[in-house]
Amino acid sequence: MSSTLQTLHGIPVTGGVAIGSWIVYDPFPPAIPHTTIDADALASEKERLQQAIQASIAEVTALRDHVLAKVGPEEAEIFDAHLLMFEDDSLLESTHQRIEQEHQNAVWAVWDAADEIAQMFAGMENEYFRARAADVYDIRARIVNHLLGRPTAQLRSLKEPVIVVARDLLPSDTAGLDPALVLGLVTEQGGATSHTAILARQMGIPAVVGVNGLFEQIAAATAEHAASSQLLLDGSSGEIVLHPDIETVARYQQTLERYRQQQQQLQSLRTLSATTLDGKTIEVAANIGRPRDAQPALEAGAGGVGLFRTEFLFLDRATPPSEEEQVEAYTTVLNTFAAKTVIVRTLDIGGDKSVPYLDLPHEDNPFLGVRGIRLCLEPEHQHLFRTQIRALLLAAQTQVTSLWIMFPMICDLRELRQARAFVAETEAQLLQEGKLAAPVLSLLRLGIMIETPASVWVLDQLAQEADFFSIGTNDLAQYTLASDRMNACLNELQRPFHPAVMRTIAHIVRIAHQYQRWVGMCGEMAGNPRASAFLLGLGIDELSMEAGSLNAVKQAIRGTTIPQALEIVERVLAADSSAAIEDILS
Amino acid sequence: MSSTLQTLHGIPVTGGVAIGSWIVYDPFPPAIPHTTIDADALASEKERLQQAIQASIAEVTALRDHVLAKVGPEEAEIFDAHLLMFEDDSLLESTHQRIEQEHQNAVWAVWDAADEIAQMFAGMENEYFRARAADVYDIRARIVNHLLGRPTAQLRSLKEPVIVVARDLLPSDTAGLDPALVLGLVTEQGGATSHTAILARQMGIPAVVGVNGLFEQIAAATAEHAASSQLLLDGSSGEIVLHPDIETVARYQQTLERYRQQQQQLQSLRTLSATTLDGKTIEVAANIGRPRDAQPALEAGAGGVGLFRTEFLFLDRATPPSEEEQVEAYTTVLNTFAAKTVIVRTLDIGGDKSVPYLDLPHEDNPFLGVRGIRLCLEPEHQHLFRTQIRALLLAAQTQVTSLWIMFPMICDLRELRQARAFVAETEAQLLQEGKLAAPVLSLLRLGIMIETPASVWVLDQLAQEADFFSIGTNDLAQYTLASDRMNACLNELQRPFHPAVMRTIAHIVRIAHQYQRWVGMCGEMAGNPRASAFLLGLGIDELSMEAGSLNAVKQAIRGTTIPQALEIVERVLAADSSAAIEDILS
Repeated sequence: MSSTLQTLHGIPVTGGVAIGSWIVYDPFPPAIPHTTIDADALASEKERLQQAIQASIAEVTALRDHVLAKVGPEEAEIFDAHLLMFEDDSLLESTHQRIEQEHQNAVWAVWDAADEIAQMFAGMENEYFRARAADVYDIRARIVNHLLGRPTAQLRSLKEPVIVVARDLLPSDTAGLDPALVLGLVTEQGGATSHTAILARQMGIPAVVGVNGLFEQIAAATAEHAASSQLLLDGSSGEIVLHPDIETVARYQQTLERYRQQQQQLQSLRTLSATTLDGKTIEVAANIGRPRDAQPALEAGAGGVGLFRTEFLFLDRATPPSEEEQVEAYTTVLNTFAAKTVIVRTLDIGGDKSVPYLDLPHEDNPFLGVRGIRLCLEPEHQHLFRTQIRALLLAAQTQVTSLWIMFPMICDLRELRQARAFVAETEAQLLQEGKLAAPVLSLLRLGIMIETPASVWVLDQLAQEADFFSIGTNDLAQYTLASDRMNACLNELQRPFHPAVMRTIAHIVRIAHQYQRWVGMCGEMAGNPRASAFLLGLGIDELSMEAGSLNAVKQAIRGTTIPQALEIVERVLAADSSAAIEDILS
Repeated sequence: MSSTLQTLHGIPVTGGVAIGSWIVYDPFPPAIPHTTIDADALASEKERLQQAIQASIAEVTALRDHVLAKVGPEEAEIFDAHLLMFEDDSLLESTHQRIEQEHQNAVWAVWDAADEIAQMFAGMENEYFRARAADVYDIRARIVNHLLGRPTAQLRSLKEPVIVVARDLLPSDTAGLDPALVLGLVTEQGGATSHTAILARQMGIPAVVGVNGLFEQIAAATAEHAASSQLLLDGSSGEIVLHPDIETVARYQQTLERYRQQQQQLQSLRTLSATTLDGKTIEVAANIGRPRDAQPALEAGAGGVGLFRTEFLFLDRATPPSEEEQVEAYTTVLNTFAAKTVIVRTLDIGGDKSVPYLDLPHEDNPFLGVRGIRLCLEPEHQHLFRTQIRALLLAAQTQVTSLWIMFPMICDLRELRQARAFVAETEAQLLQEGKLAAPVLSLLRLGIMIETPASVWVLDQLAQEADFFSIGTNDLAQYTLASDRMNACLNELQRPFHPAVMRTIAHIVRIAHQYQRWVGMCGEMAGNPRASAFLLGLGIDELSMEAGSLNAVKQAIRGTTIPQALEIVERVLAADSSAAIEDILS
């Protein structure tokens, strides 16, 4: 490799290599000019502001229509929220006041006015309103860019496939990207859990985020080379090469070719089972959030649904879904996976999930607060839970033995008994109303997520009254390590395989089987092929994951044997650091 | 009991019965009049405001001087902060503007103006500034009360001992109370961890908080009876009786007498050891927060310090304590407990503890964030940790075998090794500088708090490199149950003896002893005499608690035998609910 090659490093987000020309997309306005304007220019400054607002409204409207047509109504909602904000006059009035009274220029004025409004939102009790602060900043960026003559719409007007280089994307950008025209994404900011990273993973676009010094290097490179030159990014290693020479391109094209072949090989596993070389088969299932995810998950080779996150039916809307709407949603999924197991997790809100129509109180530590079953069993929220259980029991009539109902955040028998009693009462009501023709409860299974450390310590007790368990590794790790999984400052504790977490999982599977209980896993670890041999060795009954991970996990299982898996278990449980376990599993 | 007696129930906070006349203390202004004033009255309204502010300043100054003289400089600091706020003109200016431009009356104007300022503070990144919102509300209450002719100073002008009935106390009230004149406290609001409850416990005043409907009942009772009639409160049961009849008073006076006798009996245990009827002795030690707590703890019968919470040296000040200041603090405690064990926990900040000079970033779930050893080992905070370790090693020179250093929030060997290496490096520096005459590290002990579920699962690994363990039950329960211990909505999970927590504790003691490691306990459970037999039966080596609990715990231990304790352990570990365990331990 030539020594003049400029190579940068960031956080790898999605596999694959992208090579191509790039555009710099910079939706965040630069330094704001703090200049005042003359008294006789006030009217024209306000006119300029008015035009920028109109142009921003037109831009957001076009984006809304585009996303509505190409993606769907839910994704388009963010733009509706922005259009509503434009209709409210308080931003305009406050900006006018600053122009008229302080003679601030329009950019400065709208900047400060939006700040004040966003701060007000940020200080509110209601979680829904607090989240609106981000929307205010989003529309401010558009208005200011129009005032400064830096249009922000260019991501949608791409004519040919390019790599997008950005400081970061606006939240609203994430809904409007065309994956066919974006070869890759590189950002200076953001971490593995940023908006941009999540988007890239969803769309399968090769991406690297958190590249320190990206913009400076890009500026220097643009000055030095022709604008038409290329950029190369490797989404698996996090490497970025500016103006790669011909050898480098050739080398990475081989990497890309290998990656494509791997992807194709993985595709061929779609219809095969997850069976080890020595003939042991394990269930693999999909995690889904919406009924429309069911068919693609089935086609991707899922043998069932290991986790239906029903809270997605309840979020981003003004009222809770009706009984009928829920019956339809659950029936769709049950029918899609006819005769296969569908594990429906009951409403898990609270924590980081905002639900406008509930107006939940602010909590200092929402992950340690009233969420999951705790919220559903509170008298003031039982109506939500009742409607959901009614809908589940009614939907169960078509595919009764397929439906497994799972309660989240259970800590002890008291909570499990309360939840079971609630379901039984609800069934009795439905029978009495004649809506349910015959009892269904004895035919379906009621189980629990294992995600609190408490539930692990009383698993023997829970096993006597829960029909099955599913390990939620994300929350289990978060609580075990006392480490918020969204907090970017805790990288070291958030490595994927902590010794304490691996031992906890081993304990859960052992106790569950000692009490003859089925135990699956539906957290992120289930979809990580590096963990497959370990989990297989423990004897776990099922792994449920994002549909996109099914083939890679099948491949891992199909390449191992039970004796190998048992040896890995032994070594992992003796290891004393995350790094040591990563070595064993790599 | 006569059926006309009015009995109310609340949350019991401190033991003891109070009987006496009451005063209603209501520092929170009633509904604010939303009336405008005539244009010709603007000047006089501003004058009225000015007088109210002057009166409030005089009141706060008097309170500051009183507390400074009677309590201490740290307790007086809150009033200095309030006086500084009066010096800043923004509240006055914003209020004037509302009076002049909107013709709002002064009460309404100062109400809204303070709201805006408090909201601004509440929305800030910096935790110190966020906490200032409460101060703004505090001074607003004073100004408004003066404007409305409802002086707030009456708590300090008490002439004879009374029971104080309040909706709640202002934060600043908690520093100015005279325990000799307050027989008891009853509040309508607040929970077991509210400001008022903490204050009552510190001062040993019988108190009941969270009494629903208190004010309504008090108003009705006052209308019905002579103002001179009495109120009775039982701080152990949470019961309140308005206008008790003579029989009731007599009955409660017996209760009070028994309580006093118990307290006296407990006092007689001060110099005795915690030895069971069959001769097994367990160490009992005190938790302290400041050097000045050491002497009273020793006098109360503590056999050592099981937890010196050093973060109190770092809070409520503008700069961190210097090396010299810390050497003096640690030496004082070591000398007070000469030749007895003093366990010093290194800085545990982050979480809910605000440190102005660090400007820690906002975290969505601070209890799951960068706190304890995580913060100390971050490169930008290592200077704090280094100064503390230097001071500890220098202080150790006088009482080297007494000093045990304990690291908080350890999850795994990596963190423990990092912390130990840091201490070793620091010792090498001190030796090189000649400040330390000879190595001390090999003579003192380095151990860890067991408070994360992760540490429990890797205890065998930690035992190889930690010299001792101390169980922090508060955080351990919080993480095990995924339940913020400050969140008042999680009462059921916060009952003191959850089966999962009891089993975790049993496991910790068993593994620690299997690896020949000393294991103590310094969380709240250690000071709860109901838990003493269970902990004794597990074979725990030490219990460390608030000095006020020492005698009660000694009494519990002196009344039991090892076979009884072992039987209790067996029953507790088999129990499947908090309620069942409470029954066993009662």
